[in-house]
This record gives sequence, C-alpha cells and structure tokens, in this order.
Amino acid sequence: MTQAVPSSSVARGTRTEIDSEFVLAVDIGGTKFAAGLVGASGRVLAEERVATPPGANVHTLWKTLTTLIEPLVANGPGAGVGVGCGGPMRWPEGVVSPLNMPGWRDFPLRQALAERFPGVPVRVHNDAICLAAAEHWRGAGQGVADMLGMVVSTGVGGGLILGDRLIDGATGNAGHIGHIVVEPGGPECGCGGRGCLEAVSRGPALAAWAVDQGWIPGRATDTAPAGLTPAEPGYTATGHPAAEPDYAETEKATGRQLAADAAAGDEIARRALTRAGRALGVAIASATHLCDLDLVTVGGGLSQAGPLLFDPLEDALRAHARMAFARRLRVVPAALGRHAGLIGAAALILAPEHYWTAPA
Amino acid sequence: MTQAVPSSSVARGTRTEIDSEFVLAVDIGGTKFAAGLVGASGRVLAEERVATPPGANVHTLWKTLTTLIEPLVANGPGAGVGVGCGGPMRWPEGVVSPLNMPGWRDFPLRQALAERFPGVPVRVHNDAICLAAAEHWRGAGQGVADMLGMVVSTGVGGGLILGDRLIDGATGNAGHIGHIVVEPGGPECGCGGRGCLEAVSRGPALAAWAVDQGWIPGRATDTAPAGLTPAEPGYTATGHPAAEPDYAETEKATGRQLAADAAAGDEIARRALTRAGRALGVAIASATHLCDLDLVTVGGGLSQAGPLLFDPLEDALRAHARMAFARRLRVVPAALGRHAGLIGAAALILAPEHYWTAPA
Repeated sequence: MTQAVPSSSVARGTRTEIDSEFVLAVDIGGTKFAAGLVGASGRVLAEERVATPPGANVHTLWKTLTTLIEPLVANGPGAGVGVGCGGPMRWPEGVVSPLNMPGWRDFPLRQALAERFPGVPVRVHNDAICLAAAEHWRGAGQGVADMLGMVVSTGVGGGLILGDRLIDGATGNAGHIGHIVVEPGGPECGCGGRGCLEAVSRGPALAAWAVDQGWIPGRATDTAPAGLTPAEPGYTATGHPAAEPDYAETEKATGRQLAADAAAGDEIARRALTRAGRALGVAIASATHLCDLDLVTVGGGLSQAGPLLFDPLEDALRAHARMAFARRLRVVPAALGRHAGLIGAAALILAPEHYWTAPA
Repeated sequence: MTQAVPSSSVARGTRTEIDSEFVLAVDIGGTKFAAGLVGASGRVLAEERVATPPGANVHTLWKTLTTLIEPLVANGPGAGVGVGCGGPMRWPEGVVSPLNMPGWRDFPLRQALAERFPGVPVRVHNDAICLAAAEHWRGAGQGVADMLGMVVSTGVGGGLILGDRLIDGATGNAGHIGHIVVEPGGPECGCGGRGCLEAVSRGPALAAWAVDQGWIPGRATDTAPAGLTPAEPGYTATGHPAAEPDYAETEKATGRQLAADAAAGDEIARRALTRAGRALGVAIASATHLCDLDLVTVGGGLSQAGPLLFDPLEDALRAHARMAFARRLRVVPAALGRHAGLIGAAALILAPEHYWTAPA
C-alpha cells in the first residue's frame, strides 16, 4: 500500500516532510469541491479546489470532480480514496443526494470512483462525520476517546467518536446534533421539525433572526451592502426557513458577517451570537448526558466568533450539564481549519481501525 | 467456565430446561436487592429478593447482600458475577455510591465481591445500563444493532447499544437520557439542572404535577388514601423536587397509581401521562438524531400505562424526528419485566463481546 508521492504533487504541498503512505482525499460540498493527497501524518501534500458549479447536471458534476482529481493522481491514488460528501446518502454504499446539488440524486459516487480507481478501497462518508474524524485523528481531539466534533455553519452537523471509534449508526447518520431539540416550540427547521439546534443556530437562521431584530449587516464594520433595510419583508427568522439561505447568500447577512459585526461591537449581532451559543450549550449538555463525552470541538464559520459565541455556550452548558460525570466536558474550537474535510476523508482509509466499520 | 447448576437452585427456578453455563447475577436498587443464577439463554434459574434495609450502614448493607447470595452459591458462582447497581459509581472499578443508599459511599462493591468469589470475573455496571443490555441480549431488542433501552420509573434512565455493542462512555455513564434537556426553562431537576426529561417525566415529578392540577390519587380507582387533598401545601411539582419523593412514597401519589387512575378514566391523570409522553417523545427524537437508532425500548412502572403514555410519545416523536433516517425508529415496551436487571447483569459476564469493554 505504500507508494512514493508523485513529485509534481509534493511540489504543491506546503510541507517539506514527505509521508511515505498517502491517499487521495475528496471533500464534496455545496460551495466547493476539494481534492488532495494526504499523508499518514495527516498532512495535506497537494490540494486542488474548485467552486461547485451551480445547478450542474449529473455529468457536469462528475466531470468537475474528475478534472479536479486528475492532476493529483498521475502516479495513482496511493493507498485508497476517502471521500467526505454532503448528505443525505445511502451508507456505506456511498450513493449520494447532497441537499445543495440537485444534479446528484442517488448518484453512485463510491461506485463511480471505484471504477476509476480499481484495486484500492474507496470509502464515502458524511462530510460532517469526516470533520469529526479529522479532529479526533489529527486535530483538537487527539488522544480523546469520547468526543463530538461539530461544525456550525450554513448547517449544524457533527460526528460522534465513542470508545475511540467513529459511531456510524445503522444508516451512517449518527452525529446529527443539529437536530437535537433545544426548544420544542421553537422555530421551524428545514428537516420539517421544530426547535432543532440547527433551526436556531445555523448561520442563515441566525442572520435572519438578527435582521428581524434590526441588524444591518456590515454597519458595524463599514461594509454594509447598499440598500439593505431590516424591514425588508419575508426575511423573518422564524417561520420562513426557506427564504433564509437565499437572503444570506445574496445580501451578505451571513453567519460570518454576523461574527465580524459582533466583534466590531454591533449589539444585535452580539445578541444573536448569545442566542446561538445558548442553544449550542443546551444541545451539548444533552449530548454529553447521553454519550458521556470528554470533548466537543466546534468548527465552521460561526465558531470564528470566539468568546462572543463560546461564553454563552459555556454558560448554558454549565447550567444544564449538571451530572457529576458531565462536568469534565471541555468545549474547544476545532483545530484543523479548511483542510479538515480532506484530512477526515483520508482517515477513512488511513486509520480504518478507528473510522471505518463497514466492509470494503 | 461451564459448571453444573446446583440442584437446590434449580428447584427454585420456574423453568424446566437447565442452562449448562450460568452466572451469579445481582441487582442492587434503592427498594430491593435481588440475586439469581442466570443461564446462557437468559433464563433466571433461581432467584432471591429482599427489601433494601432503609438507612442501613455499610456493614448491614453488605451483610444483607451476602445473606441473600449464599443460598444460591453452594456450588460456586458459575462463570462469574455480574452486578447492576444504582448510580453513581466509579466505573469500571465498581466503587458505588447509590443515591438512595447513603450507607454506601464509595463502597468498593466489585472488590468485596471479587474477594468473596476469587478466580472468576466480577463486573459491576449501572443498573439502567444493565436493563438496556438485557433487552438487547434477550428481550425486545434482540437482533437490533442500534438501540436505546429506557426505564421510566422513580427516575428516568437508559443505556445505549450502538453497532451491536454497549456504549459505556469514558466513565461508564453513557445512556443518561433522563438528563437530555426537553424544556430549557422547565422544572428544576434533581441533578441541579433544569428542564431535563427526568424532571418532567419521572413518576414522582409527574404525580406531584398531577396533584398540583387537582388529582386525587386513587379516586378514579376507589383506592384513595384518606385525608389527601390536592391543596396540601408544599407539594407542587415545579420548583420543589426534593419534596416529591417523600410525598410519592408516603401518600401513594406514585407514577404507578397515576397510570392506574388514567386507565380508569381520571382526566388529570391522563393529562399527566400526555405530558410525560410528549417529553419522552422529544428526548427520543433528539437521541435518534444524534445516534441513528433502530429501536427504543421503554420499561419501568410508568410504561405500564400503555397507549395513554405511548400515543402522545409517538405524536411528539413523529413531530420532531423528521430526518429521513430517523423515521424508521420504533418505540416498544420493554419485554423482560422484573427479571431484566438480573438478566442484564448476567450479560456482562455471559456476552462480554457485546456488553463489556473494560479489562477484567
């Protein structure tokens, strides 16, 4: 399984040390496709990225992926191919229907890649699960046996590691902390439920809530888009989840902008982060009571807000996680940044004793 | 490890078939101590029970336990000793401090039993976890890979089985579904938190809530204790959790009576069960989104209420468990009844590949 890293790829890497074993890692999301060669140390030795073609059909999406990958695999994919992909998917078959890619519905991604790369294992898992695996393998969760890796971004997702092993659940969907109920009568959620953590704390929902409270994105940071008024109809946070993503995308009322404005002192933006932090703290309290965790890592755009998010999170967590065993829980920012998805996808191949339970 | 079952014990058993391999199983709770010989089929071949001596000191509790056990072990403890005990405990050391047994604080139960039974494994786990193991091993969860076994009684507890293995958590405390938050601003919980499932749905809390609403225990079933009035001060459900257990114990305002009265048509008792069922449904929705479950089993006194509890539970569950993968979840009554604790304790020894991860 050990192969030399192709020199053309090494040249693109930012590290000087070469991992003798490596894999092809792929990270497929609604905003970008990324692919890279990742070594056994977790280092990204070479990387390619491209924006996800909006509204692309099944063939264009596949062509985009293969075009991205080809420059990396002149000397083969190494020990195998690990893929993190937006859900939902049929797992472990790797038949994917990513929410933000209507061109792929029941697309046999694993099979297609296995045909391109015969003779090596090809493994596909949920992208949020890959982020958790990455933090456990080479990030903030190294050496921790029981943890939850979270991402708070356009959605709120996660992955569970218990007893030093990734927990898949029967259908590969364990870790959906975004759909823990934090407020039974709360805002409608995209899943069809109500009061889920994601319905409160995902970036677009939070931004819409803030706009509803009078927030003008960028005003505090002097980058406000022209013509935006908080009274613009149809963009209230509660009851209109469908309208939020478009608003967030087109008008810069994003979670990231919210974090920036809060850091610049915008009072409404700060209240929004408090709201998100509290909901996160309640959900994490529930999760640790159920799963007896040592650590939670929080990544994603909103986690950039720092103490403005983490302080109210801690307050709510400590108020609700009162069982003696739950008090040891630490909540820390994720450590791996933008490479986490590739590193976690690589872990599916390079550390299967922790991250892969299914055959093949 | 295979030994003949002693004939004196077999005579006490209710089954005619003899399991050639058996263990000594012990179930230690605040109301009773039970011990039995349990065969590899999960059958209880012999059993002894005694009420927990109230207020007993460390020596009296140990003497009570050994006196209970001795008649069963004339020919030794079989393949080992499995123990379920009320928490909290230091696990896997089996150093126990059961909430309702102040005489045991940091009592080295595992070590004491290991000294009495040298040469065989002695394993101690949380009693709620043993109930879950029992349902998975020989009860309603047989053949299911991912499940939560719950008990709704004086407390609300549970145990998680994921990927066909008992999940311990780092400190042996995984499965505490009673402390999932179902109502962040809800009633105070014995754990010090607020709005936990247990604070809403445990028998005594529910009974106190019903009394607060005007319930007169037994009125519907013509067994009301004399002199009880709903206006009796100090017994409101919310804000006074410390007063509830005494009230429930002394005045028959118990979860079991509530279930009986609801079955007899008492409207307040029915509303109380609806309240409990909804909270259970919300918590189960959160649990299955996090853990991707196939099955939840519900046992304990309150589960005797049947559809009056399970119907509102289903309604709330279906309203909140909306992710596609969560819809397959089934919630069923536990199958094993009063022997479940012994059967689960036996599973720690007889099926360690599923139920024991710690050394020894």
